[in-house]
Amino acid sequence: MNQQNTTKKIISCSFKNLSNKKEMDKISITDIMDQTDYRRQTFYDHFDDKYDLITWIFSYDVTDLIQHLMKWQNWEEVLFHLLNYLEENRVYYKKIISTIKLDSFKDYFIYYIKKSIQSLADDYLQTHPISDGNSVLIKTKIDFCAYGLSEMLYHWVLEDCDPTATDYHELLITVIYFKI
Amino acid sequence: MNQQNTTKKIISCSFKNLSNKKEMDKISITDIMDQTDYRRQTFYDHFDDKYDLITWIFSYDVTDLIQHLMKWQNWEEVLFHLLNYLEENRVYYKKIISTIKLDSFKDYFIYYIKKSIQSLADDYLQTHPISDGNSVLIKTKIDFCAYGLSEMLYHWVLEDCDPTATDYHELLITVIYFKI
Repeated sequence: MNQQNTTKKIISCSFKNLSNKKEMDKISITDIMDQTDYRRQTFYDHFDDKYDLITWIFSYDVTDLIQHLMKWQNWEEVLFHLLNYLEENRVYYKKIISTIKLDSFKDYFIYYIKKSIQSLADDYLQTHPISDGNSVLIKTKIDFCAYGLSEMLYHWVLEDCDPTATDYHELLITVIYFKI
Repeated sequence: MNQQNTTKKIISCSFKNLSNKKEMDKISITDIMDQTDYRRQTFYDHFDDKYDLITWIFSYDVTDLIQHLMKWQNWEEVLFHLLNYLEENRVYYKKIISTIKLDSFKDYFIYYIKKSIQSLADDYLQTHPISDGNSVLIKTKIDFCAYGLSEMLYHWVLEDCDPTATDYHELLITVIYFKI
């Protein structure tokens, strides 16, 4: 991990830690930095604001988990890691999702899921070339799955990750594979 | 149409008419009622607020279009009517969707799509009984399709209903029927 990411991780840990004790809206940048050895200004050297920090945490954590798996044949495993990560951090993410002001996180969440599905599809298409006419269809399918999946995961976190990550993974795989 | 719905329709027409000329946020109840022969109070006899009116318009219009079709074998036709309705009213719905304060409409939109898919699935299940174990799977599938579809329609309206309702209908049907 480079120095910049180390600092970012320390700030993230402070924020996650505080989120267990205080309402999300009530956590100030001063609160976050008071728990570290850095000055308050260091926060702004690395993040624009609290919302930027929240999206960075999600992106950094999940990318770390799945980036070595981003091949089409691993898509079920990618989903499994994502579900387990959300389950492990369910208290933190439920708080984020339940905070109305953090609607921008939802947009980022959907964007990230979409980008990951796109990346998996790109890998598939490298060995399965398609005609121009079919590319619109593939794009529509990716959008449909990304929207469906991100909303499902979002609501699953709101319902305290019930059923468990393992059971929900099996259920989602079946749903995605089955015809309507 | 009963008297109550007639009054509601007159208020709705006034609002839709105003929405072509003014920003959604700037339309007051007084503006809406000034264009009718009713007193301002009549609005509150029928609706809680402007947001209640907006959800009523969507629900009334779409229900009117699809309620006689709510059989499983007609689901493609139901989708076709919905797409055509959104396309015909795209200027109005794009304004609603683009107004941040109307996020509650999005929740209602998703709820309505989900309820309709549930209703179609219920009709299917009347002649195709399933075991208890499969009911969780069916519920998950309904949620997945409802979330996927409502977000797709939402973004399609934001992109000025491009491709056309007819083309998009064909595309969505193919996407929903195809395995991933």
